Amino acid sequence: MTKPITIRPAIEDDFDAMWLIFHQVVASGDTYVYAPDTNEEECHKILFENTHPFVATIDDNIVGLFVIRQNKTGLGSHVCNAGFMVSLDHRRQGIGKVMGQYALKEAKKIGFKAMQYNVVVSTNDKAIALWKSLGFTIIGTVPQAYQHSKHGLVDIYIMHRFL
Amino acid sequence: MTKPITIRPAIEDDFDAMWLIFHQVVASGDTYVYAPDTNEEECHKILFENTHPFVATIDDNIVGLFVIRQNKTGLGSHVCNAGFMVSLDHRRQGIGKVMGQYALKEAKKIGFKAMQYNVVVSTNDKAIALWKSLGFTIIGTVPQAYQHSKHGLVDIYIMHRFL
Repeated sequence: MTKPITIRPAIEDDFDAMWLIFHQVVASGDTYVYAPDTNEEECHKILFENTHPFVATIDDNIVGLFVIRQNKTGLGSHVCNAGFMVSLDHRRQGIGKVMGQYALKEAKKIGFKAMQYNVVVSTNDKAIALWKSLGFTIIGTVPQAYQHSKHGLVDIYIMHRFL
Repeated sequence: MTKPITIRPAIEDDFDAMWLIFHQVVASGDTYVYAPDTNEEECHKILFENTHPFVATIDDNIVGLFVIRQNKTGLGSHVCNAGFMVSLDHRRQGIGKVMGQYALKEAKKIGFKAMQYNVVVSTNDKAIALWKSLGFTIIGTVPQAYQHSKHGLVDIYIMHRFL
């Protein structure tokens, strides 16, 4: 039987577990822009500074995280951005989808009008399929904008959905 | 006879004049995302923090400014972003074009591979025409992503050019 996935706001005490997931994910250099050697202090800023941070848990263990933040300041602040990471040991359990659905509801509750992802690496088929299944469309392609650890320079997609 | 436009790196002493132009430009709420009431301290961060700042002068008076910066961190850091502002008293003198041409050369010299503008307001016909004339193309449209002071929510274009 699949164990239930719980989503809740992240607190400072969650950071150690969040850092492990963050480091694991960016170290592979194939999905996020953050440098593979991004350190703990920078990670803390990315996850907690001017964000709404959340964690996904199974049996009270943190297995994923996401943050919602303004995509732009001032006159663009009604559009949010979000970033999602799942622990390598907990892939293929639908955690990304549960977090994505939760983030869309939460972002709307906060008052955002749309969600925009600025860096969806074009080789990241699973993420692209997931976001499309949740109603996102590709609204732009930036050529050769990502230094992929295996494939060299690859395109990135910008994806968007109204809330 | 048209007076020559000079471009040079900005120094701290230029900030007062740069702030006047910045404030003038963002106050209209029709071209930049920065809130119309962005204050001097925030302006200083935007223009001088992690940027390559430049000014355009005529007869040693600062009539325009621009900054070149990384568009993204880490694995996206080979693409730059830039922002340009011309004093309201010095429009239609080709200052934007001179700055744009200089910025493209300078960005290449710094080592960037492409230049990307994330927020070109779709109603800003002059800017769009200028960037197209300098080889940029629209690579994406974000629907209703800008709170225009006169037109309400309008689209923004993402423009891009390899260097």
